[in-house]
Amino acid sequence: MLKTPVIVLNVKTYAEATGNNALEIAQIMDNISNETGVSMAISVQATDITKCAEKVSIPVWAEHIDPIKPGSHTGWTLPEAIKNAGAIGTLINHSEHRLILADVDTCITLTKELGLDHIVCSNNVSTSKAIAAFSPNFVAVEPPELIGGDISVTTADPDIISNSVKAVKIVDKNVKVLCGAGVKNGKDVAMAIELGSDGVLLASGVVKAKEKVSVIRDLASGL
Amino acid sequence: MLKTPVIVLNVKTYAEATGNNALEIAQIMDNISNETGVSMAISVQATDITKCAEKVSIPVWAEHIDPIKPGSHTGWTLPEAIKNAGAIGTLINHSEHRLILADVDTCITLTKELGLDHIVCSNNVSTSKAIAAFSPNFVAVEPPELIGGDISVTTADPDIISNSVKAVKIVDKNVKVLCGAGVKNGKDVAMAIELGSDGVLLASGVVKAKEKVSVIRDLASGL
Amino acid sequence: MLKTPVIVLNVKTYAEATGNNALEIAQIMDNISNETGVSMAISVQATDITKCAEKVSIPVWAEHIDPIKPGSHTGWTLPEAIKNAGAIGTLINHSEHRLILADVDTCITLTKELGLDHIVCSNNVSTSKAIAAFSPNFVAVEPPELIGGDISVTTADPDIISNSVKAVKIVDKNVKVLCGAGVKNGKDVAMAIELGSDGVLLASGVVKAKEKVSVIRDLASGL
Amino acid sequence: MLKTPVIVLNVKTYAEATGNNALEIAQIMDNISNETGVSMAISVQATDITKCAEKVSIPVWAEHIDPIKPGSHTGWTLPEAIKNAGAIGTLINHSEHRLILADVDTCITLTKELGLDHIVCSNNVSTSKAIAAFSPNFVAVEPPELIGGDISVTTADPDIISNSVKAVKIVDKNVKVLCGAGVKNGKDVAMAIELGSDGVLLASGVVKAKEKVSVIRDLASGL
Repeated sequence: MLKTPVIVLNVKTYAEATGNNALEIAQIMDNISNETGVSMAISVQATDITKCAEKVSIPVWAEHIDPIKPGSHTGWTLPEAIKNAGAIGTLINHSEHRLILADVDTCITLTKELGLDHIVCSNNVSTSKAIAAFSPNFVAVEPPELIGGDISVTTADPDIISNSVKAVKIVDKNVKVLCGAGVKNGKDVAMAIELGSDGVLLASGVVKAKEKVSVIRDLASGL
Repeated sequence: MLKTPVIVLNVKTYAEATGNNALEIAQIMDNISNETGVSMAISVQATDITKCAEKVSIPVWAEHIDPIKPGSHTGWTLPEAIKNAGAIGTLINHSEHRLILADVDTCITLTKELGLDHIVCSNNVSTSKAIAAFSPNFVAVEPPELIGGDISVTTADPDIISNSVKAVKIVDKNVKVLCGAGVKNGKDVAMAIELGSDGVLLASGVVKAKEKVSVIRDLASGL
Repeated sequence: MLKTPVIVLNVKTYAEATGNNALEIAQIMDNISNETGVSMAISVQATDITKCAEKVSIPVWAEHIDPIKPGSHTGWTLPEAIKNAGAIGTLINHSEHRLILADVDTCITLTKELGLDHIVCSNNVSTSKAIAAFSPNFVAVEPPELIGGDISVTTADPDIISNSVKAVKIVDKNVKVLCGAGVKNGKDVAMAIELGSDGVLLASGVVKAKEKVSVIRDLASGL
Repeated sequence: MLKTPVIVLNVKTYAEATGNNALEIAQIMDNISNETGVSMAISVQATDITKCAEKVSIPVWAEHIDPIKPGSHTGWTLPEAIKNAGAIGTLINHSEHRLILADVDTCITLTKELGLDHIVCSNNVSTSKAIAAFSPNFVAVEPPELIGGDISVTTADPDIISNSVKAVKIVDKNVKVLCGAGVKNGKDVAMAIELGSDGVLLASGVVKAKEKVSVIRDLASGL
């Protein structure tokens, strides 16, 4: 499982993070993680997993898996395939790629069977609590209206983080909680930890930044 | 565009065609294609595109794209990403991964903009005709009830092929038609061509076969 | 089939058109249709079909059907059920309720088998043409970006209407075409007819209007 | 809220339970409920809610709602509309109509705001527990593989019921649990209660039965 506290970057399908661009970001994170000792991971498009996993030592993750076993499922994302490609974990139920309740359960079960680490995304306190019932490794709370925005959830709605942490721990105290949406700098990261989370999940704050090195360094300084 | 007549293999998410297994099949096809001069292509999981595209000279395809442009679409399959990974074409609307009508249109438009070859799958004569209205490179007719089965569509329902060819050509005579579902051997391939199609799209007939070399050689003998 | 030219009102799930509010609008249309001789129809929520069909003589339609036959499909909209409730037709593939391509085909086939009239919605010229391949009774062209807006498609993008009419008639000259999105008044209706369509499909222009009687009278004046 | 123990019949979209057929079944249940004092409810297709609610005194429910508020949502099932039509409750997330996790949350919240009773369906112990985190009125556990079958869940997999009851009560002791799938007779009902549930949710056992009166009487005898 990811060493916590942790900074997880989800590069989505941004042009700035497709192909060699994904690798470049992974290498910057790898360098800064090595240098600072801060735990980091990067989730990339399925097409870019091998390319990144071969070149960096930080954990490379998938952005999504489908609730399927090997078989005739043309074009869906097979958990075995992302593991085989070099991913050691995967996001599940990201707010841009939501799953049916029973499929969240199936995906968590499949990752456990395959020894894949996993972060299950929630949109509020009650879904965080519901997800905790499946005892995943991580829940990441991300209010959809703040994703990709300029204001960090730690400023806009700190209660959603602290209340999610409380709700999750009541159901299963071993489940770790990440804080997402609008995270941009070291101050946001520090605040996320203060609110009881085990780290952050972020995307545009790094991917769309011109000075990626300094942004990642700044994020790391928050831990 | 694919040279026709053509044999297109869709490896789906079979364990027998994940990771190095996909590469192995691609290499067998590559050898037999070189040797016989028969046009072949292979569509593989997104995770395996680069691995295959780097090692074989036959066209490597994706199994699916989503109707998206670069941006915040966590875990969906970006057309630019599969191109960047080395794919030169993609299946669209496979019967195991159907799209809403407007998204079929969008996916075809996106592949044309990116210069990606594409095969759009249909399930009967009327959807073949509807798809032809979008002027794609290829329509592949596959009655869902015959997919993965033991009887080739060319035997079970030859009219669906010949009538699809007619219906498609009425709408746009430049659209080529492939024949899918249950195709297993050279006789099926020969029959598909006789029925007016430009080749075959198949999956389990090769992927689940023990003797892949002889099966592919036999398929090639049908052309 | 609907007598053309026709004004079809889709009341959606607006509060102003739920329950007795739907009936009230249906009755206004019924009166004005009787009075003016203008052909009109109203599509209402499944819950309100019987209530309206029992009280008005204009055709009452459903807003949607699912591609199912009687059986175990909890909560989906059965074509037989809307017919049984009193609907004589249904919208299919509305831009707010899109269907996968094969299901558009199935829904059209089911309505034909049951003798239900039907309007299949498209979002642009190429999907209009594709839908025509299924030989439905009506195609309604509605650019999604104009739906619910203040500018009629007849002003904002008249070519999409005239080109859809042309594209549809090339594939099947018996398919009629309706014009949707932003239609608000008699001038828009007149323009829609001038562009070659057989009538209009509208929603908010009537449902959200304070003076529904005068708005509907004005729409009718365009024919 | 439904008086417990309760027998809830979901008529799905069976031909035997569409239109007047639904009303007939509702009336049989109404009579037997009056006669025996056993609490019963029936969930019917949206088109049939008013017809049934006007004629029977047992609670009439909807089979499904969509996670929407009044507005432009053509053809989706508005919670306000089913209430307006006479429903006093609704199934949510039936195994034949599953919802994404965040939408389960939204639907439960909407029913609470509107004062609608609700039963949220789960497929196993862990999803039962997850649903309990939303504090719904009822969870109904139904292993999908047993739905519509000949063997009652109380015989085939009694542990799934007793373990769901335990898991649900740990998260929220006020949530009641129903037992579904394969329930056919009074013995199954009695067993369901013995396993700790507050009643049963069933469908084909009644709807497909020739002798509906005797089947419902037998079910009632189990309480």
